[in-house]
Amino acid sequence: MSGSWPATPFLAVDLTVLDANIERVAGWAEGRGVALRPHVKTHKSPEIAHRQADAGASGITVATLGEAEVFAQDGFDDLFVAYPLWLDDDRRRRLQRLTERARVRVGFDSLDAAERLVGTGAIGLVEIDSGHHRSGVHPIAAGELAVRAVDAGLEVIGVFTFPGHSYAMGGGRAAAALAEAEALASARRSLEKVGVAAQVVSGGSTPSLSMSASEAGELRPGVYVFNDAQQWELGACRREQIALTCHATVVSHAGGRLVLDAGSKALGADRAAWASGFGRLLDHPDARIVQLSEHHAVAELHGQPLPALGETVRVVPNHACNAANLADEFVIVVDGDPVDTWSVAARGMNA
Amino acid sequence: MSGSWPATPFLAVDLTVLDANIERVAGWAEGRGVALRPHVKTHKSPEIAHRQADAGASGITVATLGEAEVFAQDGFDDLFVAYPLWLDDDRRRRLQRLTERARVRVGFDSLDAAERLVGTGAIGLVEIDSGHHRSGVHPIAAGELAVRAVDAGLEVIGVFTFPGHSYAMGGGRAAAALAEAEALASARRSLEKVGVAAQVVSGGSTPSLSMSASEAGELRPGVYVFNDAQQWELGACRREQIALTCHATVVSHAGGRLVLDAGSKALGADRAAWASGFGRLLDHPDARIVQLSEHHAVAELHGQPLPALGETVRVVPNHACNAANLADEFVIVVDGDPVDTWSVAARGMNA
Repeated sequence: MSGSWPATPFLAVDLTVLDANIERVAGWAEGRGVALRPHVKTHKSPEIAHRQADAGASGITVATLGEAEVFAQDGFDDLFVAYPLWLDDDRRRRLQRLTERARVRVGFDSLDAAERLVGTGAIGLVEIDSGHHRSGVHPIAAGELAVRAVDAGLEVIGVFTFPGHSYAMGGGRAAAALAEAEALASARRSLEKVGVAAQVVSGGSTPSLSMSASEAGELRPGVYVFNDAQQWELGACRREQIALTCHATVVSHAGGRLVLDAGSKALGADRAAWASGFGRLLDHPDARIVQLSEHHAVAELHGQPLPALGETVRVVPNHACNAANLADEFVIVVDGDPVDTWSVAARGMNA
Repeated sequence: MSGSWPATPFLAVDLTVLDANIERVAGWAEGRGVALRPHVKTHKSPEIAHRQADAGASGITVATLGEAEVFAQDGFDDLFVAYPLWLDDDRRRRLQRLTERARVRVGFDSLDAAERLVGTGAIGLVEIDSGHHRSGVHPIAAGELAVRAVDAGLEVIGVFTFPGHSYAMGGGRAAAALAEAEALASARRSLEKVGVAAQVVSGGSTPSLSMSASEAGELRPGVYVFNDAQQWELGACRREQIALTCHATVVSHAGGRLVLDAGSKALGADRAAWASGFGRLLDHPDARIVQLSEHHAVAELHGQPLPALGETVRVVPNHACNAANLADEFVIVVDGDPVDTWSVAARGMNA
């Protein structure tokens, strides 16, 4: 497809920016002496994961067994399912097949779930809650859960957390990074107290990455490869570091506003409480998407001249991970030209 | 796949509820003497569209050329692209191919867009804004645009609107229905004044349907086939009328709350300002999804006993259309058992 653009709306990845993002974070992790295990749920693309591996990633992180299967098929042999999987009989068989060709770590936050992992060949990590209050046990309960899982027959090699409360304005990112460090330190001590070595202490998120005072010896950011309007608004990236955009056509000037053909079915409907809109425009930093339907984005340009009907505009989705999961492929762009397409191979692999 | 469930999370459609929803609205439209042209963007499924046609639909409505192509391929020959399409050369060729095998209406809200429709074989409808302030011209401007489009060589047969501001609590639904009726009446007069007959006056949305005082001779609701948490909260459906759920597994009881394996990549991230959460649970009407990540839904059950780890729970997505667009297929359920799978054939057809 070199040289031609598909019909809008479609997702485009600026390869130069993507590679710079991959390199910068890889260099940062190396400089800091921590392992980088990027979360590939953001892009679901083996091509991008290979670039992360080439830049020094120690392995990859996935959210589901289905994602793990796609990447294992593509040759990735060190996978962390950073999720409290519940294994029914079918998932147990799938996990067993997976561990035959890859080293697979799986998270757990209950003894019931840990017991189901026994005999699958998977290695366990205790999930702790460092303040996001989603899944995970309290850090001081990590040791008891770990030792009971070990007693049940599971190999347990450490703890992990996701500091999702780092998606916050103002001092929230730094506060979350601090809370994460304290929680991981507490969980590590809790494991050591019961005689379980915490070989792996894993954390990290894109917003908290640069301010990480973390105990973590391993970090699992995902969004940093693309960045998005959320990272831009949080101050976790600059405009120039945004690699993923949705190319959209101006279809209407109704009411003196810009109406684009990219809606929530192309961008995702994410809008955090602190977000300034439903997305941004890369080339109009002051504009905001003020209304989003399934196939319309309405942008306010605050008095600036509107791009003409039929023009293409680059939209920055609020949340890159959900936008990527809506597309079958990325159009790869170099110096403003389309040069290739890469499959979003694990799109929809929620199970 | 009769008799077996896939791995969670997956979308299930209760066939009995679906058929009752289709029949009820078809009967209502017949009783009222209006044409029903359901919007198939909700389900993107030819199987469901055929059931709507069998119940008396006069044609179908789609949002994109890609959706139109999928349904035309499946034999549907009366299609309304209720969207202000902007035809570039490629889209123009696609539309020309489409009109060779189907009667195709297309919306427009600018003369530029109308001129591009000339010679494609498509029939034009002027889009008007009835208060949602998305796309569409002011009703009193409809006549001037229509006559200029006719002068440019386009066949123009009427006007349409989407009263999207009917997604509002309290008196908002009724107010939107009233505003829609007034706007359509005004637009009809505007066309007649310049000598363009408004053979088609088209409107409708699921929330405003039952209270429609509309001028519309044709209605285009979409969500009514499935219903969702938004319609439930708006009072536009009862719990028993919800046909679409996402089956999810309880993976954690962290913090005394219910953590399910259905997140925004299965449910969509939609949350209107007036919504009480990120989704509901069909069998726990008082519960609310209070936190949503890509693969976690955290539900508050307000002191009620939590379903056990590993149990399956039926989640009602906030917005059925966006949830359906995330799935490759629906599991069809009769009397609580899976009996078939239907393809979400037009999933991702945003262009």
